[in-house]
Amino acid sequence: MQSLRKILSRIERGEATPADALAATAARIAELEPQIQAFASRPDALLPGEGPLAGIACGVKDIIDIADLPTRMGSAIYDGWQPRADAPIVMALKAAGATVAGKTHTTAFAFLDPAPTRNPHDLTASPGGSSAGSAAAVAAGMIPLAIGTQTGGSVIRPAAYCGVAAIKPSYALLPTVGVKPFSWSLDTLGLMAASADDVGAALAAIAGRPSLDAPAASLAGLRIGIHEQAYAGAPEPASAAALQRFRELAADAGAVLVPHDGPAALAEAFHAHGPLQDYEATQALAWEYAHHRDALPPKLRAYLDAARATTPEQYDEARRLSRRGRDAARDFFGEVDVVVSYAAPGEAPDTLESTGDSRFNRLWTLLGVPCVTVPLARGPRGLPATVQIIAGFGSDEHVIAVAKALEKRVEAGA
Amino acid sequence: MQSLRKILSRIERGEATPADALAATAARIAELEPQIQAFASRPDALLPGEGPLAGIACGVKDIIDIADLPTRMGSAIYDGWQPRADAPIVMALKAAGATVAGKTHTTAFAFLDPAPTRNPHDLTASPGGSSAGSAAAVAAGMIPLAIGTQTGGSVIRPAAYCGVAAIKPSYALLPTVGVKPFSWSLDTLGLMAASADDVGAALAAIAGRPSLDAPAASLAGLRIGIHEQAYAGAPEPASAAALQRFRELAADAGAVLVPHDGPAALAEAFHAHGPLQDYEATQALAWEYAHHRDALPPKLRAYLDAARATTPEQYDEARRLSRRGRDAARDFFGEVDVVVSYAAPGEAPDTLESTGDSRFNRLWTLLGVPCVTVPLARGPRGLPATVQIIAGFGSDEHVIAVAKALEKRVEAGA
Repeated sequence: MQSLRKILSRIERGEATPADALAATAARIAELEPQIQAFASRPDALLPGEGPLAGIACGVKDIIDIADLPTRMGSAIYDGWQPRADAPIVMALKAAGATVAGKTHTTAFAFLDPAPTRNPHDLTASPGGSSAGSAAAVAAGMIPLAIGTQTGGSVIRPAAYCGVAAIKPSYALLPTVGVKPFSWSLDTLGLMAASADDVGAALAAIAGRPSLDAPAASLAGLRIGIHEQAYAGAPEPASAAALQRFRELAADAGAVLVPHDGPAALAEAFHAHGPLQDYEATQALAWEYAHHRDALPPKLRAYLDAARATTPEQYDEARRLSRRGRDAARDFFGEVDVVVSYAAPGEAPDTLESTGDSRFNRLWTLLGVPCVTVPLARGPRGLPATVQIIAGFGSDEHVIAVAKALEKRVEAGA
Repeated sequence: MQSLRKILSRIERGEATPADALAATAARIAELEPQIQAFASRPDALLPGEGPLAGIACGVKDIIDIADLPTRMGSAIYDGWQPRADAPIVMALKAAGATVAGKTHTTAFAFLDPAPTRNPHDLTASPGGSSAGSAAAVAAGMIPLAIGTQTGGSVIRPAAYCGVAAIKPSYALLPTVGVKPFSWSLDTLGLMAASADDVGAALAAIAGRPSLDAPAASLAGLRIGIHEQAYAGAPEPASAAALQRFRELAADAGAVLVPHDGPAALAEAFHAHGPLQDYEATQALAWEYAHHRDALPPKLRAYLDAARATTPEQYDEARRLSRRGRDAARDFFGEVDVVVSYAAPGEAPDTLESTGDSRFNRLWTLLGVPCVTVPLARGPRGLPATVQIIAGFGSDEHVIAVAKALEKRVEAGA
């Protein structure tokens, strides 16, 4: 993978110019795109910007508006569609000096129908979704940074399946203006890169919050709550083994691991994710459903056929349960330093027909709390399997710091 | 003004068809548009839909996407801009059978630089803003229903200045997808019509929530908290007199009026509105500011010049104060049946250079609580002056019911 930090260090030391770095990235894209199929569209050239991320090419999920590239949203309904303005996240990216590498493939409207993208670890396995192109392009070493979005598990899951680091920050830390909505109470922008260190550096620059480029935390004495999310079902052996690997690494480093089940309000909030998303998605895609139902891919079409039966009363109840869950989360996260859970049920599905399952991600998206994943282990099929580190709302700096400590232990082969 | 309920009753009784009602509306628009200047664009014809609002023509504020009309946002930057899809609120409107009367004039990007619209009560006075065309078109009797948006006071204030009824519902009751954002934590869609009765009927149909078409409440024994918002400054005599008129009407009807100052957390939340909006507006309009600063109107340009100095720390503090305010609001609204405050500082400004002042609206927008205003009194210049009725989050039905009771007393000249 391309290390964002190493690219910036080389530029800082005068060993390369931003243009050199972008040329290297362009060459990697040209080499690998035919087999990975990560990009929906790309600019004619990668021109360097000015700022802390000068020389960094970033993939932008193709539900995010860019004025000079089409925004297709993974759907023929938007063939040739050209937005008028850059989304604020794209403006922030450019203001930090980064260069748009292109629009990365998304599942149609960021739902479950697969994108054409392949998993670089196994071209017959799913890269996950919905931010498939973003995760695969980083994993293949085509680009050092990518932007995705998560409504269920669409950042952390593809990152886990493709073996890259990622953050789904606190809700609305990054602005979703100019991003095609699916469920506005849930939709959250996230970043993917080769490491938590890279993710922290990029998020700090893009959000204009230097403290997010946090030094690695000390794991010694850190109280880590292990939350297995029994209400979400059991993990596959690959993820169970990844959690066990995490336990060993963290315990070796002196962390205090405690089982941390959480109150019933969290499980109730988990179950509220469904009706919350159903009611909002029905509205967010009302025009597409009414005018282009036959052009919707089969999973999304069937989903909307069913979701539209959700009543205002069910939605209101889901909002109430969400609020209760968020209230309960303050205590839940206050009792430990961080919480760790599975990043995905297991390795990437052994098929291009499924993008996998977001059941270990949904609660955190709904709570709006920050989640970071880093590559940790390999499953029985040789594909990545890992955990996610989670903390309370606004503790983005903290989850980055802990993830950086973890990845140092992984790199050291501790 | 055109009464939505009367139009629907005539259609129901077979005294008119939806097409007849729309033809009458079209004639009123043709007659009055030259002097009121309420519309930015209009369809070639008003064609009837099917549903509970068939025959009702609705103005749609010109920051809301409609696929077959331009969306100019009150700015030359978007001259000729044509969105691809209808916003969900427009889809909901059409699904309820209503017809789009046209795009109503907005101040540029829903900020403070005046729209070309005039106040039907006095063509030299401000109609308010930012939903100027929506309020003026209803007030002039051009249309029976209009959609606006409020980030500070952009629904309730122009409604008060133009003497129409309006609701700013609970935050996100109506979806803001496809609506140009200014500050996503605050932006709220609202409705304007001739009466609270009309507003309730329309909101019920559009939101798919029949209970919002609530019967008038009984004022006898109702505990009404009078909240003068001292932290927002003093009202002008016209609004002070309107509140006094409200007191008399409500007391005559047997309501129990209690001073209801509220905890310090509310005043703190009021002051948090500024940095919250500043930080988000800077991002929401980042593309326009970076690429078209010179084309922005002077108030918005100066505002963004200053707002961009807002730091993430100031924003985070504003979000914390907002959350504390929302927590405090649960108790505040729980202690009385409804709260009443000024809808605007006074009569409409005696100038076309100002859209007035949102200081009595901002707190409620930030808290996300429902507000309804109905015409109540006239100020010394003969222009409308009124109050707003406010309740806790989700109590939209209740504020509509109380407003309906109030307007019955006003109509009866009690």
